Amino acid sequence: MSAQTPIEKIVETPGNLVVHWENGEISKYPYLYLRDNCPSPSTIHSNGQKLIETSCINAAISAQNSELRNGTEVLINWDTEDHTSLFSAQWLFDHRLSKAAIAERRQQHMAHEPVELWNATLNQHLPVGDYGAISVSDEALCSWLANVSRYGFAVLRNVPAELGMVSKVVELFGYVRETNYGKLFDVKTTVNPNNLAFTSLGLSAHTDNPYRNPTPTLQLLHCLQSSAVGGNSVVVDGFKVIADLKAYSPQMFRLLSTTPVTFRFENQDQWIERTDTIIGLDVFGEVNAIRFNNRSVQAFEVDEDNMPAFYAAYQQLAKMIDDERYFVQFKMEATDLFIVDNERVMHGRSAYDGSAGERFLQGTYADRDGLLSKLCVLKRKVISQLV
Amino acid sequence: MSAQTPIEKIVETPGNLVVHWENGEISKYPYLYLRDNCPSPSTIHSNGQKLIETSCINAAISAQNSELRNGTEVLINWDTEDHTSLFSAQWLFDHRLSKAAIAERRQQHMAHEPVELWNATLNQHLPVGDYGAISVSDEALCSWLANVSRYGFAVLRNVPAELGMVSKVVELFGYVRETNYGKLFDVKTTVNPNNLAFTSLGLSAHTDNPYRNPTPTLQLLHCLQSSAVGGNSVVVDGFKVIADLKAYSPQMFRLLSTTPVTFRFENQDQWIERTDTIIGLDVFGEVNAIRFNNRSVQAFEVDEDNMPAFYAAYQQLAKMIDDERYFVQFKMEATDLFIVDNERVMHGRSAYDGSAGERFLQGTYADRDGLLSKLCVLKRKVISQLV
Repeated sequence: MSAQTPIEKIVETPGNLVVHWENGEISKYPYLYLRDNCPSPSTIHSNGQKLIETSCINAAISAQNSELRNGTEVLINWDTEDHTSLFSAQWLFDHRLSKAAIAERRQQHMAHEPVELWNATLNQHLPVGDYGAISVSDEALCSWLANVSRYGFAVLRNVPAELGMVSKVVELFGYVRETNYGKLFDVKTTVNPNNLAFTSLGLSAHTDNPYRNPTPTLQLLHCLQSSAVGGNSVVVDGFKVIADLKAYSPQMFRLLSTTPVTFRFENQDQWIERTDTIIGLDVFGEVNAIRFNNRSVQAFEVDEDNMPAFYAAYQQLAKMIDDERYFVQFKMEATDLFIVDNERVMHGRSAYDGSAGERFLQGTYADRDGLLSKLCVLKRKVISQLV
Repeated sequence: MSAQTPIEKIVETPGNLVVHWENGEISKYPYLYLRDNCPSPSTIHSNGQKLIETSCINAAISAQNSELRNGTEVLINWDTEDHTSLFSAQWLFDHRLSKAAIAERRQQHMAHEPVELWNATLNQHLPVGDYGAISVSDEALCSWLANVSRYGFAVLRNVPAELGMVSKVVELFGYVRETNYGKLFDVKTTVNPNNLAFTSLGLSAHTDNPYRNPTPTLQLLHCLQSSAVGGNSVVVDGFKVIADLKAYSPQMFRLLSTTPVTFRFENQDQWIERTDTIIGLDVFGEVNAIRFNNRSVQAFEVDEDNMPAFYAAYQQLAKMIDDERYFVQFKMEATDLFIVDNERVMHGRSAYDGSAGERFLQGTYADRDGLLSKLCVLKRKVISQLV
């Protein structure tokens, strides 16, 4: 953002400093807000951390006097404390407090890490990186992480088929989230299963660990062995499915984003449970999570009159998730890895021919905080190298 | 829960099986719900995981015929698939779908892990455990973890003043959450600080890492060295403060639970940011989180007309958090440790005399999933040993 225009004049009114911009726009800034966000080194550390207690500022603080300097700076001496604040016109412009200005900043912020919804057409241009490249090149790593942020999913090739490599990949951008499944876990499917959970049947797409709070926000799966025939991996963009469901039936969307359901994982040594909505909404009312796992969801606690409508919504969502038009499918070969945003992109497996071969994956969980931070820092670095 | 009464009769109606209990109560069960929750081993694994795809059940499924056996079992043959379901009267009673029955179950569930709000009166009966005891006794560990669940806070004594012991404590119930601060981090405050962040002034109570998503849900601090005079640790029950704030001003509660604010941590190698409400609400509209850290909160994005009311709410909350009537205070000595639920209980430090001495803590983050699971499993075990 850049200041479109200098300041024409400032006016002190009760409670607010009012800035008149040369283009005719008028902005009000409550005095308390200005004092709280004074850029002086005694108020805000150079690292951005606030050094004063907001609660200690007199709520009735006002300007003893104020002064506009060259249309580019505003100086305020405060009445309830011996302190002077100096704001640049740029800062004031970047912090205009009209509803429109706030909405515009939010749009710009969202455009900074764009989210792109996808369906099966993403098969034509899978977001793919190369392990060797992202291990040594900031630019390659930045590009791969940007894909994870944008699509909630990316493939990585040529990850040596060695035990523990999946953790090494996490270390490139963040931190492994240990759970009761360990720091990493083996997904070893034998061809002749002795357990119903390890059949050669397809596994419908799901998010992992919806019963865990906080749910791990990233999952990585690394293929070490792949001699079975078939068994494509399937990923589905939950946010795309939800957007389409909302267009199809706002009522179903409403039910799935307001009705609590319980997920549970239970055995002799564990009892992990979470009750939340299937569709998560953020403070702006926008979708920020999908929690979908038919295996761990418990009997719905919806009253008898509303149960049919809830089942209709649940079945509709589940059928869409199981619709090939949303599938991105790929066969994992040894040295392949994929990562998903586990609160956005569901993963599963198509059926495979169980007559021969082995399939051995190692998986781990991690979180978005490290990934998004690394991406942000790399972007700054890559851009500064380009300049 | 126990069945109050046997079943008098069952009636097939369009869409529902209707159960008439001998006490006169009538319960409706949609057929789709019953089929989905059939307890047969081909539907639900003994570990509680569902083996069928709910989306594949015919939404119009109905009973071909049904039968009441001895008032204690209901058998249903389905019309759209060749499958028989057998429900116990107990299961049906435990899953009555009236609004009242659902609300009653939720109350019972909440009573299972009671949450007790507290203020400074908790100083008279600090929840304290002994490291030696909880390391060897299921009962002692169970009791200590139950305190963490109930109060969102507990002290542990006699943790050897050795580096890394804080991780050993986590291993008793869960898993360390690694962040950019490491697997664990040193809080070393020298008496003559050369950095504004390390003064001997009090640090107002706060939650850690509100800029991180997901925020670590547990924090542990272990004291290895404590020769400084003063410097009491302070913990404040955020849920108690919020309850009192809500009683004082429902409007302030509403603003703080609906207005997004941004928290940020930024340096050369990190850019971690989260936008969310200060008061978090769960799907039932109940408080499930407080995110409060005046040092990392960014300039509020609230429009100019609503900014004064938001500041009034924020200052009121901050003043209450800084009110000694909410303080539980204790001096950490070497071998002391405390744990907080980092989305409920804020921690800080009172001022201390910086004329002599050292203060050295090691801290780490962890998550509630492991702790609550361990607590649940230990309760079962301890109870079964008592029987």
